Amino acid sequence: MTRRLLLGAFLFHPGGAHVTGWRHPSAEPDRHLDPDFYADFARTAERGVFDTIFLADGLYLWDRYPSGIDHYSQVRPEPLTLLSALVAHTRHIGLAATVSTTYNEPYHVARALASLDHLSGGRAGWNLVTSRYDEEARNFGGDAHLDHSRRYERGAEFVRVVERLWDSWGDEAILADKVSGRFADASKLTTTDHRGEFFTVRGPLNITRPPQGHPVQFQAGGSPAGQDLAASTADAVFTRWQPLGEAQAFYAGLKARVVDHGRDPDRFAILPSIRPVVASSRAEAEDLAEELLASTPDTLIVEDVSHTVGQDLTGRSADEPFTYRPDTDTSNESRSPNRLAEWSRAADRVTARELYARAFREQTVVGTPQRVADEMEARFRGGAADGFIVQFLTLPSGIHRFVDLVVPELQRRGLTRTGYEERTLRERFGLERPRVAASIGETRV
Amino acid sequence: MTRRLLLGAFLFHPGGAHVTGWRHPSAEPDRHLDPDFYADFARTAERGVFDTIFLADGLYLWDRYPSGIDHYSQVRPEPLTLLSALVAHTRHIGLAATVSTTYNEPYHVARALASLDHLSGGRAGWNLVTSRYDEEARNFGGDAHLDHSRRYERGAEFVRVVERLWDSWGDEAILADKVSGRFADASKLTTTDHRGEFFTVRGPLNITRPPQGHPVQFQAGGSPAGQDLAASTADAVFTRWQPLGEAQAFYAGLKARVVDHGRDPDRFAILPSIRPVVASSRAEAEDLAEELLASTPDTLIVEDVSHTVGQDLTGRSADEPFTYRPDTDTSNESRSPNRLAEWSRAADRVTARELYARAFREQTVVGTPQRVADEMEARFRGGAADGFIVQFLTLPSGIHRFVDLVVPELQRRGLTRTGYEERTLRERFGLERPRVAASIGETRV
Ligand SMILES: Cc1cc2nc3c(=O)[nH]c(=O)nc-3n(C[C@H](O)[C@H](O)[C@H](O)COP(=O)(O)O)c2cc1C
Ligand SMILES: Cc1cc2nc3c(=O)[nH]c(=O)nc-3n(C[C@H](O)[C@H](O)[C@H](O)COP(=O)(O)O)c2cc1C
Repeated sequence: MTRRLLLGAFLFHPGGAHVTGWRHPSAEPDRHLDPDFYADFARTAERGVFDTIFLADGLYLWDRYPSGIDHYSQVRPEPLTLLSALVAHTRHIGLAATVSTTYNEPYHVARALASLDHLSGGRAGWNLVTSRYDEEARNFGGDAHLDHSRRYERGAEFVRVVERLWDSWGDEAILADKVSGRFADASKLTTTDHRGEFFTVRGPLNITRPPQGHPVQFQAGGSPAGQDLAASTADAVFTRWQPLGEAQAFYAGLKARVVDHGRDPDRFAILPSIRPVVASSRAEAEDLAEELLASTPDTLIVEDVSHTVGQDLTGRSADEPFTYRPDTDTSNESRSPNRLAEWSRAADRVTARELYARAFREQTVVGTPQRVADEMEARFRGGAADGFIVQFLTLPSGIHRFVDLVVPELQRRGLTRTGYEERTLRERFGLERPRVAASIGETRV
Repeated sequence: MTRRLLLGAFLFHPGGAHVTGWRHPSAEPDRHLDPDFYADFARTAERGVFDTIFLADGLYLWDRYPSGIDHYSQVRPEPLTLLSALVAHTRHIGLAATVSTTYNEPYHVARALASLDHLSGGRAGWNLVTSRYDEEARNFGGDAHLDHSRRYERGAEFVRVVERLWDSWGDEAILADKVSGRFADASKLTTTDHRGEFFTVRGPLNITRPPQGHPVQFQAGGSPAGQDLAASTADAVFTRWQPLGEAQAFYAGLKARVVDHGRDPDRFAILPSIRPVVASSRAEAEDLAEELLASTPDTLIVEDVSHTVGQDLTGRSADEPFTYRPDTDTSNESRSPNRLAEWSRAADRVTARELYARAFREQTVVGTPQRVADEMEARFRGGAADGFIVQFLTLPSGIHRFVDLVVPELQRRGLTRTGYEERTLRERFGLERPRVAASIGETRV
């Protein structure tokens, strides 16, 4: 079997990955809570034979600066209810939700994902995140966010408990035998009896084993701690788009970590996000990109950069140069490389607009379908990616353009397929269904 | 407008309300995780113009006695994922899930229910329960279940926080104005800033106000504390089936409590559960009831009675008389009247089989469609019920029989309607959509 490029359709903001993508003439910002808006997204992804859709999520409203509420399209359905609502609208595509291990209970998460996996016939996935912001902590009884390293310790224990709960019922446990009156074979049921540092969970789970055994586990943390957790437990990672050389180094480094954990690097997919802006001609694509960039109001630019670099620039003009002297330590939010902070540090004086535009341009691939496919192919063949999660700068038009223009080009090159073959998301990722006994034996302590 | 009898379709066990309903020849116990099984349930309820479906729930596996696992059909989808999956299969019917206030966080619950309400166009409801068993506590870090009265205190604070979160966004807050670039009007957004005994929640919620304002709130606690919480905050209560006189007394007492809380008793529905066993002839219905009762194995009868009366009878024959001397205090599980315990106390010696059969017979209404409709009408007109949540002893046939046989009789008598009129579940219950300001002003401290 030749290796195939994996494709995920990434729903970041409902209006598109660009924060003001909702302003585009083709956008439909009053439909962000309409199930048909998402059904169109998922069905279009299925038409493009994407392996999965994936919903980003955060447990707070982005309101650290006033522009967040004013300009930001941050109203969206809760991911697990939305994915469940999409089951009936789709037949093949994976349904992956972001789940915070910092502000959830393993029993609820194991159960809801098992339920989605059953209802969808083996299409569930989860993107395990540890959450990021103090604002999230404050919606769940805390004042400040749990410390970065403690979050990953909690995350690691969380995964172990969830997988144990999924393994509560052996695959042959249900008899449903009307004649004998035996519904289940108690000898095939395992009590979880987990007593750890963060969780005490007796189990068993009150739903049988998911069709996939374990729904596909994605992760997205980029710090050393995040990479380590992913290397030890995840099936795939989502990562940021980076310049080719850096992406290759990241890819090689993470695969090495997977090997260090005694796992098969070919059964572990690295999926950078890609933000294509595609049109039949290069000029048209560039106009579209500029139009999107220009749609962001100056206040939002200034406040977004303030948020990211940890320096309060509010009240300034977007064109007023500043010297990087952060007044907040953002390292508890993320220990992934912070490019805007790096650039600010490197430049003597820089403006918010320059930083914003540079990040926008570095993170987008603008051009014809051939140009976008070239970039994807180069990274796929060049040891930088096993596939991509595609972000669409504006929705719904972004995904339609990608499926109409780029997908046929990827298929022509034999990089992706023209139809679905495997039944479950796991199988599509080339992963075995974990056996119950094995997964219990393997439990890491 | 003449008063109309409200109808809910109650899904207790997926195999039916009778614990071994799954053994009936018409039952489909291997489809309990199949979305089409539930789509058929919901669509059939919609064909019968039910106001809502309602899913029971528990956060544990019933395994206190071995028979629980052996004989009990306790595998089911998680309620909120299931109801979301049913959105696309239905158009009108309410979608109500049981939610534990003891083992959940208000932010997650407010958000998921708001999401379901948006996705379904105003059809969400929740049955607020405080949970019951130590087994549930042990899946969430505890050893024993929170004390009965503390649970209700937590439940009361939980409701306040959830309603405040739903009121985060004023109804006109979303502008989605592409020209000005303003997505929302920050002045119409309220931060929750709740600091209470059980919860600290900053808010605002990251989803706009539910179409219903507040999804319909059901409760089901029967103790004085449970009735008091319901009287102060619920829109409707689910209650047990009781002999007519007791049901009338309960109804009058609860309505009086509602008045004590300064609320309108006509905007507060009391819905006893009813378990009809219906057939064209009385003899046929009685045969069906006996067949269902006989489907319960003796071990399950003995262990179920042990569970309910708090006395370990395991190992005995179902026909061996015992003297009531409970070895467990079950009052922390429920302070609703415990009829099996009352009967055991009253009798000098009684057998498990006698108790079990008596409870089965007292809780079912067996007979022709006319007989079932007579019973419903007498209670509806006789000050014992504003409607019913109907439990079907075996599924899927139970709901089909009810809709085919009883519903036309109720419609003929003008007790229920032949089609849907109102758009939302709230409207169908005759309730106003709460205003944002009002509901904040009313917050009880
Ligand atoms: C492509 C991608 C998508 C992500 N999606 C989310 C998300 O939806 N929600 C979230 O809380 N974190 C998300 N993250 C991960 C957080 O950014 C991560 O928790 C944060 O970077 C802090 O962890 P770290 O220090 O290990 O990077 C995503 C990261 C990447 C690269
Ligand atoms: C018709 C009806 C349905 C109920 N459904 C549930 C349920 O699905 N899950 C649950 O935990 N409790 C449910 N309950 C409520 C619990 O039984 C209640 O929490 C228990 O009775 C303890 O509270 P109490 O002492 O106030 O009655 C239901 C009660 C009734 C009457």
